[in-house]
Amino acid sequence: MPPKAAEKAARQAELDAQKAAAEVDFATEFYGKLPLNQSQTRPRRPHTHIADLKPEMDGQQVLFRARMQASRAQGSKMIFFNFRQRIDTVQGLLIVSPGKVSKQMYKWADSLQLESIVLVEGTVKKAPELIKSATIQDVEVHLSQIHLISGLTAVLPFTVEDAARPETEIVGTDDEVRNKRVLLDTRLNNRVVDLRTQTNQAIFKLQHAIGILFREFLEGLGFTEIHSPKLQGAATESGASVFQVSYFKGKAFLAQSPQLAKQMAIAADFERVYEIGPVFRAEESNTHRHMTEFIGLDLEMAIEEHYHEVMELLDSLFVHMFRSLRQRYAKEIETVRIQFPADEFKWREGPEGTLKLSFKEAVDLLVEDGVPREKLDDINTENEKRLGRIVRQKYDTDYFIIDKFPMALRPFYTMPDPNDPTLSNSYDFFMRGEEILSGAQRVHDPALLEEQMRAKGVDPASMSYYVDAFRLGCPPHGGGGIGLERVLMLFLKLNNIRRASLFPRDPKRLEP
Amino acid sequence: MPPKAAEKAARQAELDAQKAAAEVDFATEFYGKLPLNQSQTRPRRPHTHIADLKPEMDGQQVLFRARMQASRAQGSKMIFFNFRQRIDTVQGLLIVSPGKVSKQMYKWADSLQLESIVLVEGTVKKAPELIKSATIQDVEVHLSQIHLISGLTAVLPFTVEDAARPETEIVGTDDEVRNKRVLLDTRLNNRVVDLRTQTNQAIFKLQHAIGILFREFLEGLGFTEIHSPKLQGAATESGASVFQVSYFKGKAFLAQSPQLAKQMAIAADFERVYEIGPVFRAEESNTHRHMTEFIGLDLEMAIEEHYHEVMELLDSLFVHMFRSLRQRYAKEIETVRIQFPADEFKWREGPEGTLKLSFKEAVDLLVEDGVPREKLDDINTENEKRLGRIVRQKYDTDYFIIDKFPMALRPFYTMPDPNDPTLSNSYDFFMRGEEILSGAQRVHDPALLEEQMRAKGVDPASMSYYVDAFRLGCPPHGGGGIGLERVLMLFLKLNNIRRASLFPRDPKRLEP
Repeated sequence: MPPKAAEKAARQAELDAQKAAAEVDFATEFYGKLPLNQSQTRPRRPHTHIADLKPEMDGQQVLFRARMQASRAQGSKMIFFNFRQRIDTVQGLLIVSPGKVSKQMYKWADSLQLESIVLVEGTVKKAPELIKSATIQDVEVHLSQIHLISGLTAVLPFTVEDAARPETEIVGTDDEVRNKRVLLDTRLNNRVVDLRTQTNQAIFKLQHAIGILFREFLEGLGFTEIHSPKLQGAATESGASVFQVSYFKGKAFLAQSPQLAKQMAIAADFERVYEIGPVFRAEESNTHRHMTEFIGLDLEMAIEEHYHEVMELLDSLFVHMFRSLRQRYAKEIETVRIQFPADEFKWREGPEGTLKLSFKEAVDLLVEDGVPREKLDDINTENEKRLGRIVRQKYDTDYFIIDKFPMALRPFYTMPDPNDPTLSNSYDFFMRGEEILSGAQRVHDPALLEEQMRAKGVDPASMSYYVDAFRLGCPPHGGGGIGLERVLMLFLKLNNIRRASLFPRDPKRLEP
Repeated sequence: MPPKAAEKAARQAELDAQKAAAEVDFATEFYGKLPLNQSQTRPRRPHTHIADLKPEMDGQQVLFRARMQASRAQGSKMIFFNFRQRIDTVQGLLIVSPGKVSKQMYKWADSLQLESIVLVEGTVKKAPELIKSATIQDVEVHLSQIHLISGLTAVLPFTVEDAARPETEIVGTDDEVRNKRVLLDTRLNNRVVDLRTQTNQAIFKLQHAIGILFREFLEGLGFTEIHSPKLQGAATESGASVFQVSYFKGKAFLAQSPQLAKQMAIAADFERVYEIGPVFRAEESNTHRHMTEFIGLDLEMAIEEHYHEVMELLDSLFVHMFRSLRQRYAKEIETVRIQFPADEFKWREGPEGTLKLSFKEAVDLLVEDGVPREKLDDINTENEKRLGRIVRQKYDTDYFIIDKFPMALRPFYTMPDPNDPTLSNSYDFFMRGEEILSGAQRVHDPALLEEQMRAKGVDPASMSYYVDAFRLGCPPHGGGGIGLERVLMLFLKLNNIRRASLFPRDPKRLEP
């Protein structure tokens, strides 16, 4: 624009503004900040969910509360909004119009900060063409009213749009986009904003889904949910990684698993139990897959003949979870995949079933692949990953079981193999080359239990109430413990367990 | 018997025993101790549940694993057994018979200790008359084999039959029965045996049921289950009653409720959340209704207009729980009632609905009943109980709500009443005169929140991550927290909360 024209335009704009200010605002009731909701009134007006908006509602009046995720003014008479509720967004349109939307209303709406919570009233309109910037693509809402329910009194650490950017976009070469990368630590420090992304809304719906599927499967098989105490009188399992609590004039310890309690429930005739609850580990591991507090999905059951009864039940449980996640939560999985692209998680079904390797067979596969056998008394994290790749290549599955671990690698309560005392009736389950479940047949005989405790350097007297539980009769039993966040992380390939925890805890993080 | 006859009988018995010992035992494979189950074999023989035994199965062979709860030899050829699986028992009969049950087998079976776990094979027979000593009264099992799976290597602290005696029987005048009373502390010290009673099996099935009903109701209304961390960087709510944890080189605190986390989930757009998890209270209260660790059923939800949206949803949740417990779990409730007789729990349904009193109305009821008004700034435990009795008498209900508590009695995050700042938008729910839920609309405005924190002596800086959550926009919201064990205790009238907890924790008890 030549200088003269620019000057003229600026003058015109100023005149327009003065004129607008001078005009009587016919729309004052249609916009503005609402008083703090202290439940003053209850008009019982029906609210709509963005997810429910459909082209068939064309012409209908709707009322909804939403986040204002984005806004863009076009010309001086129109604003495009993007309104968000959880994983759904819809386009809103505010158009200056005599008797309906005043210029003052336009100006106020244009000044709203991102992430404000607004109460929107408007008319549903079929979209003239698919709206790619929203999840509800075939409908938009033409605003007649917009009020502020809750605004911002601090600066956003990052926008929700930036926080939801695909990882692939970020590793590209575009500097401007790369600079918008939100680091994991920044996210976790501002977790309340980070959690608002559609990705995170979907991740935590899927976390909930895993819990639902775990329970529905076990409840169909006669399991009872128990709640065992997290405060313990003695350090259980391993003294090294236990948190100590000041308990009145004495001390207590945080349970490292519900292992002892769930076995005692079996000795108390509960037959089949499960628990969903926090598990505490005082390990100073700052890795992508360790937290100091996580959610354990634990189960324990009496067996009639063989510990494979438990192992097979656990296997069916996982297949049920994988299948149902894909069938019932396709939208959430798709939403997460936009930000975290991943190969589809693969498992085997049908007559061949889940791949089950013995520990020895797993070692052989690694040796074949070039790992020196003398390094394979145990399979470390690196070799686990490698095994996962070998298995994926050879058997086309991301999910498999290793059975028959050496006794030396398992805790004292593990039942030894009947034929080879160096082996045990124990198993681990793997997803994408990482362990997500550890389980076994347990020792239900007090004499053998004490013997194995001593062999592992645990004084039976230090946990006498546990050993005593087996002196009064206990059925043969077995079980397993699943890390909820690990299953979620590996199914979705989130690459860091903190992304699968609402407010993660590690040696360096206790807040928020 | 005259001495001569007794002598003769004794001599005859000895001769019989010698003869029996000398006889070749044709039944050696039909009884005896099984080797320790290390999963040696897996014949896949089908097992029957005692609960499934029916007269229509007359003549069928069955195989089951059970506790031997009682045995009584009659004459020298017959033993009556009482076999138990969870809340069901069935009578077993072992009869010496040529080629089938040998005298040696009889002798061995008669020597089995109570509470042994046995594998029983036999034939189902319609009972000639109802068997009152078993829950399966129309069927008995005639044993062909009995093997010991797991025996006892310690002395039973009490029998399961004694532990299940009705409280009414115990308070009677019969000394012999009174002496069989098992004290609560003895029970808790030997909880694994105590939990085996049919009463306890039913109590914990009902505990599980409350969890199921809580979840199914909320999941139908779009709630998301969350898991918030129990390890906190700062003492929340009240510094006095918080447990401190050694956390690597620093310290942490155990969450006294998921209050802050669930509100942050609302600020993070989760809209409606619930959590089932442990809650820790370092209160040195040795009462019938306090524990240092209990299970909280918590929920929080955004509201559109008024906090009564939450209060009414919580009310519907309770009515759903009461109704479904009675409909779906009648057998368990009946089983508990045998040991703990109680008036049927009463609530109001239909058009009149749940009784809702304001705090002021509740106080007026107490004043009318003779309590001096000046003692009613708060309603203490004793007056709560009294109010429960008044309400039961006047309104014929064991369940009611008190709304509009004085602000002075509520925590800093409670929203004040819009018209009277000395009151608040908060409520408690009561069962049989005891509080089982506390809830409110919360303050979602950071300025008001800080003001109220300061007024209650809490430094906003000490929990800045929580206050900050509201600076970036948060919808109006409310919620509540329910004590799982309290609901269970009061619904069943168990009189002590420890009976409603698997392994209860109080200031004096950290084991088992």
